Amino acid sequence: MAEFFNVISPSDAVSLMISTLQPVGKELIDTSKSVGRISFSEIKSNEDLPAHDRSAMDGYSVKASDTHGASESLPAYLELAGEVPMGKSPDVTLKNGEVAVAFTGGMLAKGADSVVMVEHTNLSHSGLVEVFRPVAQGENVIGRGEDYLNGEVIIGEKSLIQSAHLGSMLAVGITHVEVYHKPTIAVISAGDELVDPNSKPCAGQIRDVNLYTIGSLVKGIGAFPKSYPRLPDDFRQQKKIAEQALLENDMVIFTSGSSVSNRDLTAKVIKGLGEPGLLAHGLALKPGKPTIVGMASDKPVIGLPGNPVSAITVFDNVLRPVIAHMKGLHGWSPEFIAEPVLSTDIHSASGRTDFIRVKIRTDTDSAGLFADPVLGKSNSISVLSRSDGYFEIPSPDTGVYAGTRVKVFV
Amino acid sequence: MAEFFNVISPSDAVSLMISTLQPVGKELIDTSKSVGRISFSEIKSNEDLPAHDRSAMDGYSVKASDTHGASESLPAYLELAGEVPMGKSPDVTLKNGEVAVAFTGGMLAKGADSVVMVEHTNLSHSGLVEVFRPVAQGENVIGRGEDYLNGEVIIGEKSLIQSAHLGSMLAVGITHVEVYHKPTIAVISAGDELVDPNSKPCAGQIRDVNLYTIGSLVKGIGAFPKSYPRLPDDFRQQKKIAEQALLENDMVIFTSGSSVSNRDLTAKVIKGLGEPGLLAHGLALKPGKPTIVGMASDKPVIGLPGNPVSAITVFDNVLRPVIAHMKGLHGWSPEFIAEPVLSTDIHSASGRTDFIRVKIRTDTDSAGLFADPVLGKSNSISVLSRSDGYFEIPSPDTGVYAGTRVKVFV
Repeated sequence: MAEFFNVISPSDAVSLMISTLQPVGKELIDTSKSVGRISFSEIKSNEDLPAHDRSAMDGYSVKASDTHGASESLPAYLELAGEVPMGKSPDVTLKNGEVAVAFTGGMLAKGADSVVMVEHTNLSHSGLVEVFRPVAQGENVIGRGEDYLNGEVIIGEKSLIQSAHLGSMLAVGITHVEVYHKPTIAVISAGDELVDPNSKPCAGQIRDVNLYTIGSLVKGIGAFPKSYPRLPDDFRQQKKIAEQALLENDMVIFTSGSSVSNRDLTAKVIKGLGEPGLLAHGLALKPGKPTIVGMASDKPVIGLPGNPVSAITVFDNVLRPVIAHMKGLHGWSPEFIAEPVLSTDIHSASGRTDFIRVKIRTDTDSAGLFADPVLGKSNSISVLSRSDGYFEIPSPDTGVYAGTRVKVFV
Repeated sequence: MAEFFNVISPSDAVSLMISTLQPVGKELIDTSKSVGRISFSEIKSNEDLPAHDRSAMDGYSVKASDTHGASESLPAYLELAGEVPMGKSPDVTLKNGEVAVAFTGGMLAKGADSVVMVEHTNLSHSGLVEVFRPVAQGENVIGRGEDYLNGEVIIGEKSLIQSAHLGSMLAVGITHVEVYHKPTIAVISAGDELVDPNSKPCAGQIRDVNLYTIGSLVKGIGAFPKSYPRLPDDFRQQKKIAEQALLENDMVIFTSGSSVSNRDLTAKVIKGLGEPGLLAHGLALKPGKPTIVGMASDKPVIGLPGNPVSAITVFDNVLRPVIAHMKGLHGWSPEFIAEPVLSTDIHSASGRTDFIRVKIRTDTDSAGLFADPVLGKSNSISVLSRSDGYFEIPSPDTGVYAGTRVKVFV
């Protein structure tokens, strides 16, 4: 029943897996559906945007020289030569002393070099346009290529595509884009004591929760969770499903029970999947120590702790960066939410990274933000539901004093 | 061609819409698919979790009194009475001086009140268990209801369901949950100059971008975007589609062209949809002034500015909070990402809220974060792609000096 721990740090576990792990392949998708995906290569505009000079204002396109010296008391009187309708190229050519109606986003008349805003003009009864202010050459004009020049970069490689990038790509006619595949990740739960959440557990049984929390986290970071039938503590059955899952997915996650025998079984299964097999049996973090880290067929195979808080902590801090790498993302960091003041001393053992769950509270007197640790000796699932996020106590530190500002992540 | 502006502040626009707007209805869904949805009512546990005392460690369940005084030099010698397997209720009853094997998460033997960790024991050849440390009553035991008591709240009403809440609900057998519907939001683009992104625009035309950026933003905040055929600047066609969209959706967004005539047409269409019709023709914010705010059939009807940066700014700061309210969410705030130091003075007009797009840069010398404003006279889509987020200059202020820390949101 004794357990051999070959414990490594969470960051070493990430490095070990990433060192031999290639990002998943690429696919070509509609740009309009690319938000949240990761660009495969650098994407450049292949045309000037706009393709022609455009008016930035509603008003009149003019030759700037015709407005020089114009003022409220001494307007320039210019002839209305016509209009350039929206969506049309100009069929008006300005002679000296002429203007043409211009619309925001529309083209200028031929011969015009600037636009005078409608607010600075008056259309007189005689049909002459009074201009009350001078404009400089190029004023109120969006020049050709001012938004994007031909060849200019819209988004780099391995970058998260956001709505603005989607808009930029479509604006220059890039309607399809190469992105990394979404990794497919097997989530397998195993344990004699686990029953479906629909069932009423008998004494000694518990409802299987990790299958669903981990599945939802996988989905939330833009990968496909694939689930398998729940397994008993049986080596043959677990090995069979593990082999199948390894073939069908880019990563395999076991959420096993919480006892040593569960873990030993998972470790044995991972060992049997192929080289290099087991990389670590235990992580130097709390919660989350009883984690099994392995690789087989160049794919990560992980045994998460049975405790739900431990399982989610390991997922957040070890699997997220690995999955980000698999997705092709350049760099990854957890989402920072606030930097509140810790309300009580927290002790920690040196040599291990601690993640402390906290509830963030606004103090009405000081209007400051405080972090109240949410503790529970069993590190139960309610600890997670009651907390807003976590802060990290790095491995060398032995604790954090009340009054310290801590960086809270989710 | 002059335009009448009935300008209101962005926050007034939000309040006006929210004041008469009911959240969309509820639906019952699988708890396992509820992450990201909004709880309709408070959800309480309807049982104790765990339902029985459980071991928090691998070891032996014991009567604490049998371990009193035990030490490395003078262990307590206890009889191994059996084992409580994972997932089973105990069929062992401890007499004084007896222990039973206990697994993490498993039940204790009858008569046991605590668990001694396996690390503090030795199983001798004679079959006796040597215990080297005393335990107190309840030590290493997760008591009945310690995670959730029957009746304890798991998540409040109108709250975002996260993975931990999903786990908590499933752990107590709540496999279905009432959540608010996802609002359905019509996104209609109109403008003679707009062409499909697949097309090569003729002179004076531009590719329709807002339809897709706004659609992707709607989807990103957990609502369903519904698109309609692109419309010309024609009152009858716009009115017909607007009426249909109003029937079929919870909100209607027009992304029209950027000229006064486009806007006047949108305003006329919104006016014609019913009471109260037009609420504002212009917002006191930059970029985003030429926004049309209306309500008809108790649903918001919005005309977004044609400029892509303006359209996204209005969406982020006016429509997001309104859609959050429709989704049933209790409170909403933009996502804060950093508080860098502004690198240059930024001027602003009093009486208007300014949103300044910035690129965040880490200064290698000072290791500090700096915000470089991303400006572009045309406020073109590239400004968005090049920026990491925005900060706000409130309406009364006339600018922000370089060196000021600014809160950047996305």
